[in-house]
Amino acid sequence: MLSLAIINGPNLNLVGTREPAIYGSISIDEYLQSLTADFPQISFTLYQSNVEGLLIDQLHRCRGSVQGVILNAGAYSHTSIALADAIAAIGLPVVEVHISNVLAREDFRKQSFIASKCVGSISGLGLHGYRLAVDYFASRHV
Amino acid sequence: MLSLAIINGPNLNLVGTREPAIYGSISIDEYLQSLTADFPQISFTLYQSNVEGLLIDQLHRCRGSVQGVILNAGAYSHTSIALADAIAAIGLPVVEVHISNVLAREDFRKQSFIASKCVGSISGLGLHGYRLAVDYFASRHV
Amino acid sequence: MLSLAIINGPNLNLVGTREPAIYGSISIDEYLQSLTADFPQISFTLYQSNVEGLLIDQLHRCRGSVQGVILNAGAYSHTSIALADAIAAIGLPVVEVHISNVLAREDFRKQSFIASKCVGSISGLGLHGYRLAVDYFASRHV
Amino acid sequence: MLSLAIINGPNLNLVGTREPAIYGSISIDEYLQSLTADFPQISFTLYQSNVEGLLIDQLHRCRGSVQGVILNAGAYSHTSIALADAIAAIGLPVVEVHISNVLAREDFRKQSFIASKCVGSISGLGLHGYRLAVDYFASRHV
Amino acid sequence: MLSLAIINGPNLNLVGTREPAIYGSISIDEYLQSLTADFPQISFTLYQSNVEGLLIDQLHRCRGSVQGVILNAGAYSHTSIALADAIAAIGLPVVEVHISNVLAREDFRKQSFIASKCVGSISGLGLHGYRLAVDYFASRHV
Amino acid sequence: MLSLAIINGPNLNLVGTREPAIYGSISIDEYLQSLTADFPQISFTLYQSNVEGLLIDQLHRCRGSVQGVILNAGAYSHTSIALADAIAAIGLPVVEVHISNVLAREDFRKQSFIASKCVGSISGLGLHGYRLAVDYFASRHV
Amino acid sequence: MLSLAIINGPNLNLVGTREPAIYGSISIDEYLQSLTADFPQISFTLYQSNVEGLLIDQLHRCRGSVQGVILNAGAYSHTSIALADAIAAIGLPVVEVHISNVLAREDFRKQSFIASKCVGSISGLGLHGYRLAVDYFASRHV
Amino acid sequence: MLSLAIINGPNLNLVGTREPAIYGSISIDEYLQSLTADFPQISFTLYQSNVEGLLIDQLHRCRGSVQGVILNAGAYSHTSIALADAIAAIGLPVVEVHISNVLAREDFRKQSFIASKCVGSISGLGLHGYRLAVDYFASRHV
Amino acid sequence: MLSLAIINGPNLNLVGTREPAIYGSISIDEYLQSLTADFPQISFTLYQSNVEGLLIDQLHRCRGSVQGVILNAGAYSHTSIALADAIAAIGLPVVEVHISNVLAREDFRKQSFIASKCVGSISGLGLHGYRLAVDYFASRHV
Amino acid sequence: MLSLAIINGPNLNLVGTREPAIYGSISIDEYLQSLTADFPQISFTLYQSNVEGLLIDQLHRCRGSVQGVILNAGAYSHTSIALADAIAAIGLPVVEVHISNVLAREDFRKQSFIASKCVGSISGLGLHGYRLAVDYFASRHV
Amino acid sequence: MLSLAIINGPNLNLVGTREPAIYGSISIDEYLQSLTADFPQISFTLYQSNVEGLLIDQLHRCRGSVQGVILNAGAYSHTSIALADAIAAIGLPVVEVHISNVLAREDFRKQSFIASKCVGSISGLGLHGYRLAVDYFASRHV
Amino acid sequence: MLSLAIINGPNLNLVGTREPAIYGSISIDEYLQSLTADFPQISFTLYQSNVEGLLIDQLHRCRGSVQGVILNAGAYSHTSIALADAIAAIGLPVVEVHISNVLAREDFRKQSFIASKCVGSISGLGLHGYRLAVDYFASRHV
Repeated sequence: MLSLAIINGPNLNLVGTREPAIYGSISIDEYLQSLTADFPQISFTLYQSNVEGLLIDQLHRCRGSVQGVILNAGAYSHTSIALADAIAAIGLPVVEVHISNVLAREDFRKQSFIASKCVGSISGLGLHGYRLAVDYFASRHV
Repeated sequence: MLSLAIINGPNLNLVGTREPAIYGSISIDEYLQSLTADFPQISFTLYQSNVEGLLIDQLHRCRGSVQGVILNAGAYSHTSIALADAIAAIGLPVVEVHISNVLAREDFRKQSFIASKCVGSISGLGLHGYRLAVDYFASRHV
Repeated sequence: MLSLAIINGPNLNLVGTREPAIYGSISIDEYLQSLTADFPQISFTLYQSNVEGLLIDQLHRCRGSVQGVILNAGAYSHTSIALADAIAAIGLPVVEVHISNVLAREDFRKQSFIASKCVGSISGLGLHGYRLAVDYFASRHV
Repeated sequence: MLSLAIINGPNLNLVGTREPAIYGSISIDEYLQSLTADFPQISFTLYQSNVEGLLIDQLHRCRGSVQGVILNAGAYSHTSIALADAIAAIGLPVVEVHISNVLAREDFRKQSFIASKCVGSISGLGLHGYRLAVDYFASRHV
Repeated sequence: MLSLAIINGPNLNLVGTREPAIYGSISIDEYLQSLTADFPQISFTLYQSNVEGLLIDQLHRCRGSVQGVILNAGAYSHTSIALADAIAAIGLPVVEVHISNVLAREDFRKQSFIASKCVGSISGLGLHGYRLAVDYFASRHV
Repeated sequence: MLSLAIINGPNLNLVGTREPAIYGSISIDEYLQSLTADFPQISFTLYQSNVEGLLIDQLHRCRGSVQGVILNAGAYSHTSIALADAIAAIGLPVVEVHISNVLAREDFRKQSFIASKCVGSISGLGLHGYRLAVDYFASRHV
Repeated sequence: MLSLAIINGPNLNLVGTREPAIYGSISIDEYLQSLTADFPQISFTLYQSNVEGLLIDQLHRCRGSVQGVILNAGAYSHTSIALADAIAAIGLPVVEVHISNVLAREDFRKQSFIASKCVGSISGLGLHGYRLAVDYFASRHV
Repeated sequence: MLSLAIINGPNLNLVGTREPAIYGSISIDEYLQSLTADFPQISFTLYQSNVEGLLIDQLHRCRGSVQGVILNAGAYSHTSIALADAIAAIGLPVVEVHISNVLAREDFRKQSFIASKCVGSISGLGLHGYRLAVDYFASRHV
Repeated sequence: MLSLAIINGPNLNLVGTREPAIYGSISIDEYLQSLTADFPQISFTLYQSNVEGLLIDQLHRCRGSVQGVILNAGAYSHTSIALADAIAAIGLPVVEVHISNVLAREDFRKQSFIASKCVGSISGLGLHGYRLAVDYFASRHV
Repeated sequence: MLSLAIINGPNLNLVGTREPAIYGSISIDEYLQSLTADFPQISFTLYQSNVEGLLIDQLHRCRGSVQGVILNAGAYSHTSIALADAIAAIGLPVVEVHISNVLAREDFRKQSFIASKCVGSISGLGLHGYRLAVDYFASRHV
Repeated sequence: MLSLAIINGPNLNLVGTREPAIYGSISIDEYLQSLTADFPQISFTLYQSNVEGLLIDQLHRCRGSVQGVILNAGAYSHTSIALADAIAAIGLPVVEVHISNVLAREDFRKQSFIASKCVGSISGLGLHGYRLAVDYFASRHV
Repeated sequence: MLSLAIINGPNLNLVGTREPAIYGSISIDEYLQSLTADFPQISFTLYQSNVEGLLIDQLHRCRGSVQGVILNAGAYSHTSIALADAIAAIGLPVVEVHISNVLAREDFRKQSFIASKCVGSISGLGLHGYRLAVDYFASRHV
């Protein structure tokens, strides 16, 4: 059975509970509950933290427990070499997801330490990006 | 009926016919034929050129004929402001696809003029990225 | 009744207990106790942490509980996009305070991710800067 | 008796007479008249010029005549090394005030030659910033 | 009696339990146990965390409890001004250790905020670097 | 008889047929037809292409056939050294025209390889800029 | 009746009185006298100063007295944010003129603070550029 | 039998027909005809285009038809990642030739995307550089 | 008879009246009076201003009235392209003098717009630098 | 028997004979004599030169004569690619030593060409750094 | 009779005696002996040194003794302005040779001070590059 | 008795024996002989070398033997940190002389490592600069 971790970083706990005109009225929690329910053949671990080091701890725990990671590191994508090192250290395929198109935003969001350690990335396609990432792992697992 | 254009830029015609150990033995043409056959409810227009200006011409032709564009501009992604202008000018949603994870390659591939004009991007997930992009447009069209 | 949060970041817990020749012998804790006592018409929440993510958690908690934030993010001002995102997300006016004149120190302190998300900033005026920030909110609240 | 100079640089003479929706309908002249009237125990010298060199002349005149300077050098903050040298030469405490939050504006406003020569700075708090700067000098003078 | 703290940062808990061909089959925990056992005349405090702010907390605790610090801040060496400030604040001699030669790796590892706050650094000499750092403090203490 | 070439680059064929609120409802083709009709004493050659190399070919053809060139190279202005070389090679006076004020747009439009090879430039004055350029050549030709 | 200001900055008073082989033997004063005489239906205000702040003063005076400004700020174009602010503040259309092609000269002339605040610019077309700028305002005024 | 392609990029068709004082009165076509006639034991394919994409097409055609390529990509050397990708994709040894010493010209000619994909380069030795490149392939082929 | 202008820029009027431990107790005015008295065979014009544009005016007046200029432009050396243009325009030999060694001070003093327009420069040799500059002109004049 | 070379570069011959308050009164020669005497089981070759090329010559001579090199290249560490090439060419493990903490000094000392060619480095630990480097080789040799 | 100098810089004395799998088993000395023997009509002077200044001395000696120089300055190509000045000073044609393709190696090898002072360069073609350079001089000498 | 060293660096031995139209027909040797003869009350040591390390050796020898140094380090001024360190180490006042105005030449000559270690500098005043430097030391010595 395929097991995946979905890890979300800083401020992502707020998605869906603020600015509904932009993000819709479905919270990210509800979205991910619904998404995982649609894939009964996959075992999911969901995690969110605003603390960089706790995200690293969680990535370490993925070794031996899951076969792939979907990571939205939020703003830490642009500043955290430590997270990038953790991805490299655990030896698991990681797909990066961003809800918005980070390359169309401020310049400082164009630098990503973690992108080069990931298998690939999906950005700008909203919460749907998580579903596409799951689909990618599912298509590899067949 | 949803209609989409899939536009590929320079050197992408070679994918699948060289270095099969890396890219597999399925050519990009065969892959896209198979992909489009799986979505009979969508009308596809396929196009490839190595000429920057002809890709611009093709984007211009998309106005009024398709509802979305999947664009792999290859190396022009990193140097062509004219392509970026064309994307902005035609007023259609464009999803950028890259077969490899461009952010894990040379530094000069980290600059993208077209990324900020696109809805979003998918990179590093191989030819499967085209399928995810189609899935994204299909999910929006429902 | 006006309610304000005063949030201090890394190493600020040490102010007043080290290098008294420079910082005086009043600790920041004592100073803030005295300052808040001078404004009985304002409700204050004081918080300090050396952990970036816990500062973000605290900013999130400010939504709905206070009307303004006085933030001295210390060194995280120069490195944390995640904190800047948190300020933008909570939709509250935030005034940045720095005890020393950061622009007169090392070059790497001249970059500030959070400054552009704040209403304004006060720096170099010592612990008195906190008082001026409170005065600013009080003058707006009248 | 405490004596202070308030010196304003280029284009600040226009504040309050243009774009009232943004800046309010009180002119900077009226505001400063009112502010100084509130501090009868302080002697004020007010000066404004659009000419960089005349601002330098005025700073030179402050030596021996005032005990502190409140300086809003406007756009010269970002381009004038000569003004910065003048601040250093006169040996008086100077507090920098900016009406808007300059760090949230164009990149070229993020460089400040004069900031590192000042005691500290207040920005983004509107005309109220001048009052806070006066309050700072008053609190020091007690 | 000389007392030293050995503090390790993010991902260093994994050393020795992964990639044994590169790092050997001795874990960093075992190595440090063995190392400290070889110096009975020195009192050691060992600490590891993946959380930047907890490393700062630990450095603060060193004031008054140890006479020197051996710090391997891992990836935070390159991104954390807050850690550098903590080193400066506690007023203790700190020797930086890196297991690998960070200057022979990616460009972004060439920037170090903490290096300039340390007495010196040892890098590229493997786990043996910790022993040399202890030896340095022992030789000073005689 | 004075003969001039007016050469337009990528995406300029779309001017007037999109976004009429911005550009008006007169197409660039109609505008240039009308403009050239107003100067019966001048012989005009009009050309547009989205292909960088075809623009170079056209510049080559200008040698010996016209006495001056009015060039709006669009986005190629900012990336094409080859076009710049072509301008230098043909030895004809070239006046650069831009419909919008390119210096007030994105940063990447501030670099121009071709500007330094031209006699001069007119930008931001709308389609009227073409007329001013013709007027310039006419005034020189008298 | 259309009224225009023509404002010239540093060193432009010397044009025509030095290096006649390059600039011709007509002084800029004579040229502008002749130019304005050719447009009797337009009221002109001519001004020149080498002092940055006096140019700002003059721009301020244009509010309410003229409908458009033709500005050759000379070298201040490349160094003066204060002039750029003045242009933005007065709310009048300003056309920038440069006698020489500044983009073909030294690198430091490629930066322009004022260009992005102007409607457009004309450069490299000699004194004739002033005439084209007048023509532009006249064509808008009809 | 050794077969080589000689591919020339933008503006190189003009060499020899302009500025004979600099380049001599022998056209590049005549030179290459003469050069290839001197090597009857080698089969040559000659190609020139000003179109970036057509040069890429031609490089693609070299796969399977020649054993080595001599490429003077002219100004595209400095801007075309797509050409560089094509060189990498075809898996043939390519020697870069430049007639002039590009490193002694403008700064923007010092960047070369294609140089790192070539076996080596010859520059500044005039048309004779083509002969040396042929000699290099001949010496390898023996 | 040789005639020279000695022109001093911003803040130089203060030399000698402040910080006597550093600059000595002789004012720059007294020094230059004494210096010029030592060269009765030379006619001197002395000028000082803090206003950039007035320094330009003064340089313009030098045309036709003196044969050489000794210029200490102070901080304007590093920011004023307009002054550099004035030096180039007047066609007189100008020797730059700095009292302190500007290259041993802040980085922003290492840029000089005017240095490349001068014959040469003398810096770091104190007020004696003016004497050496006079000596240089005298030796040329013989 | 283990044999090591200790090679010192420019200005290191002066250590100990100047500024005794800083460097102590033991000369580097005496220190190294004493150090090598403490390791009778190791054969040492000592060398110092101020000439970059002679240091390269000496490194070349190490091939076949020693098993490890301790190199303090002084200022050449920051400027000499040739030295770095020599280290790479000789195929011996080289440990870099710096007496002072170079990362805490001027910015231009932060670049090191040779660091990435060495096994590792020790800096800031004074002359004791040489002893630690010897200890490192001795521990490897067991 | 044509006389040429072949001058080799740092570390080139090692070519052929190390890493034969890469460089072959012919030493550079043997190669150059053989090469010069093939051109009996040319007089050769061979020189190698690891010392930058001695290479300059040798270049000076070339004045009046040879008609052309073939220079492989090795790593000094990237760091030595003094060598570049020497090439300019002696007024002889110099052809730069690099055995490897320096532009495909580290970034710091992309800067060349000497390239712009040479007639041209040959790189990446192995030891054969020396032969091509001789051929170039021979073809010019006819 | 005042004793001075005059030290010249790379390529300066050629001054006067090449390009007499530019440098005059007096060699630098003759000039310095004549100069020193004019100051019988000063003892001079003259030295020239093209080898960076030998210049360092010579500076070391100046300790204890002369009271001041006049140094024209030529191109090493821009690349040699080791020379700068030597100047700092010997504790003698050094005046930098450049015959040409280095700031008016190539950009890479604008960086000077040694300038900030010298008392001051004289550049662009030809060989006369040496005389002015001697005069400076003589005036200090009185």
